[in-house]
Amino acid sequence: MAFNKLIEYDDASPEVRAVYDDIMSHRGVEDVNNFWKCVAAHPPTLRDTWHSVKSIMDEGALSPLVKQMIYMAVSITNACAYCTASHTAAAKTSGMTSEMFGELQAVIALANATNRLALGYDVPVDDQYLSK
Amino acid sequence: MAFNKLIEYDDASPEVRAVYDDIMSHRGVEDVNNFWKCVAAHPPTLRDTWHSVKSIMDEGALSPLVKQMIYMAVSITNACAYCTASHTAAAKTSGMTSEMFGELQAVIALANATNRLALGYDVPVDDQYLSK
Amino acid sequence: MAFNKLIEYDDASPEVRAVYDDIMSHRGVEDVNNFWKCVAAHPPTLRDTWHSVKSIMDEGALSPLVKQMIYMAVSITNACAYCTASHTAAAKTSGMTSEMFGELQAVIALANATNRLALGYDVPVDDQYLSK
Amino acid sequence: MAFNKLIEYDDASPEVRAVYDDIMSHRGVEDVNNFWKCVAAHPPTLRDTWHSVKSIMDEGALSPLVKQMIYMAVSITNACAYCTASHTAAAKTSGMTSEMFGELQAVIALANATNRLALGYDVPVDDQYLSK
Amino acid sequence: MAFNKLIEYDDASPEVRAVYDDIMSHRGVEDVNNFWKCVAAHPPTLRDTWHSVKSIMDEGALSPLVKQMIYMAVSITNACAYCTASHTAAAKTSGMTSEMFGELQAVIALANATNRLALGYDVPVDDQYLSK
Amino acid sequence: MAFNKLIEYDDASPEVRAVYDDIMSHRGVEDVNNFWKCVAAHPPTLRDTWHSVKSIMDEGALSPLVKQMIYMAVSITNACAYCTASHTAAAKTSGMTSEMFGELQAVIALANATNRLALGYDVPVDDQYLSK
Repeated sequence: MAFNKLIEYDDASPEVRAVYDDIMSHRGVEDVNNFWKCVAAHPPTLRDTWHSVKSIMDEGALSPLVKQMIYMAVSITNACAYCTASHTAAAKTSGMTSEMFGELQAVIALANATNRLALGYDVPVDDQYLSK
Repeated sequence: MAFNKLIEYDDASPEVRAVYDDIMSHRGVEDVNNFWKCVAAHPPTLRDTWHSVKSIMDEGALSPLVKQMIYMAVSITNACAYCTASHTAAAKTSGMTSEMFGELQAVIALANATNRLALGYDVPVDDQYLSK
Repeated sequence: MAFNKLIEYDDASPEVRAVYDDIMSHRGVEDVNNFWKCVAAHPPTLRDTWHSVKSIMDEGALSPLVKQMIYMAVSITNACAYCTASHTAAAKTSGMTSEMFGELQAVIALANATNRLALGYDVPVDDQYLSK
Repeated sequence: MAFNKLIEYDDASPEVRAVYDDIMSHRGVEDVNNFWKCVAAHPPTLRDTWHSVKSIMDEGALSPLVKQMIYMAVSITNACAYCTASHTAAAKTSGMTSEMFGELQAVIALANATNRLALGYDVPVDDQYLSK
Repeated sequence: MAFNKLIEYDDASPEVRAVYDDIMSHRGVEDVNNFWKCVAAHPPTLRDTWHSVKSIMDEGALSPLVKQMIYMAVSITNACAYCTASHTAAAKTSGMTSEMFGELQAVIALANATNRLALGYDVPVDDQYLSK
Repeated sequence: MAFNKLIEYDDASPEVRAVYDDIMSHRGVEDVNNFWKCVAAHPPTLRDTWHSVKSIMDEGALSPLVKQMIYMAVSITNACAYCTASHTAAAKTSGMTSEMFGELQAVIALANATNRLALGYDVPVDDQYLSK
């Protein structure tokens, strides 16, 4: 049996259905995406991950769009194809334009490059940053 | 001889000084931070990296603050202590509040967690994301 | 010519066949998996990698099941799809249940999240851990 | 102001103190470690991270010792010095012997090596793993 | 609309065509590879990335072959399948033999293994390396 | 008891001393560096890791200098400070000049940047690379 079997709503336990219902209601969609259908194999992870996504990704001091782009930066740096695809879609839904996407990629690439220059040259941290 | 020797302005070649001058002028500071003093050991890298930073990190479709937070997300994910310290400082200068910092960390942590759930469960990409 | 050509038993040199024979005999299988058929392109790597796998992954102070789950944790964190698939299969053969799999994913996700909180907040190491 | 200021119990809000109290009570210790004192700067992250740690790391289908070693494998692979130190200490408290530690490191190193062989040789996933 | 749409020469703006022309002329090929056709969605990134590739990857103190193998080492460590495929091809064009490829993979695997041993054992840096 | 205790020659078992002797003899040095003194806590890892280093890092189809620079590229990408320091020193001993070091860093930075552009734009692999 595969561990990445998709658990559809009709085959789900009441506990899992309750989370699916909350995701669909919160997002105004008619089905949940595959991530949730896989993670549903372990209901506590499904429930707690959804709780975290719901409480962290909504409007706060940072906008949903900014949060989705930060999510993309992490997912691309970690080479996670699924999260890159799903959060790129979510960012577009939140208003990311083609120009924003281009700048986002440029910043991600630049940061990955300079991270390695800092590590390769073993740059000592400036006093001014320590005292911040 | 160490490769991470800091090249101070007084010891720098005219080529390196020209870049330092441009950094200080562009940023309105009186000295460049250690990153540049190390990378100056290879002038083409100094010049091209500064060119990239200047053209990518300024105001565009994304604000400097958003760009600095994306930079932080990459640097933290890559475990680069220098870049985390320097770009956290830059983000604060650009207006990052304590609340924004807290939400940023929460998004970074969440993305790193769900990236691994997607990889561990080998979640297949939904058709809707492929057609985006 | 591709570097990831699969070298089948019938086409293998005696040196490579000897390693294949040992793998099949040690594991009680009738063919080696693709990893070995690719790495066989460089016989010293084939031989030394198999030597390491054989000596490290067998029963010791840690059980084969625990070792396979640790292997999964590393492979998922590194986004290596092949190793994730093959060691998930090996862990199941060693007795990993669906519940264990679910808890394993939850721990991997949590660790990846808190790693970045520790790095992002630049948490200083407690004295008690230094003296351990 | 530094973002990695340690928030001590005496300076903490009632909301933060409640989490500290629960950590100390649950673990039978008289102070919380620095991770919590830093993350306390953002109370929702403190509360939710502690909730996750408490529910995920306790006895389940996997023992606390196995979970701590999986945590170590992830933290070492991610180059997170703080989490490596703190979870190595926790694993020892949970019963990790010197021999277990040695085998754990050997498995982590081996997995990191073979992950890159699989990626570098671009090994195709065997049919038998796809159908698992 | 997908962000990874390939922008073919006939559909490209004059600005993008100028970069494509320079790539084809510099490399003596009749078409650019998909990387450039995707990045062309953001012309400044196309132009600056090509500028960097052209100035960094040509003959210098290090040969093009050595540079391509370093590129492969990074791409494999980062689990980037596209760059692994394209730079393996480029290294072969630059003269990488099957034996060199085998040794390269062995070094990459060994380095990834010992990196984690150094991190897991928290090895203190020797004085002799600090003074280098 | 710390796991990263340094095991000095005088305190070592005959089994560990034999490896230390071989390292010192092979390298023409009068002491082994800290990496070996830590890993010595688990003699099989000490013995097998030294066996791998000795057989992989010596002259072959690739020179020791090229191998050390590949080691650096991996260590920097993985944020391993110890291995970056020790293999930068080894590369210098093998003849790495300041200009080579500068170019090496530039290639590492560029590769880390373009890896993420390829992942972020989800660039499809060109047919020509698949057939290689």
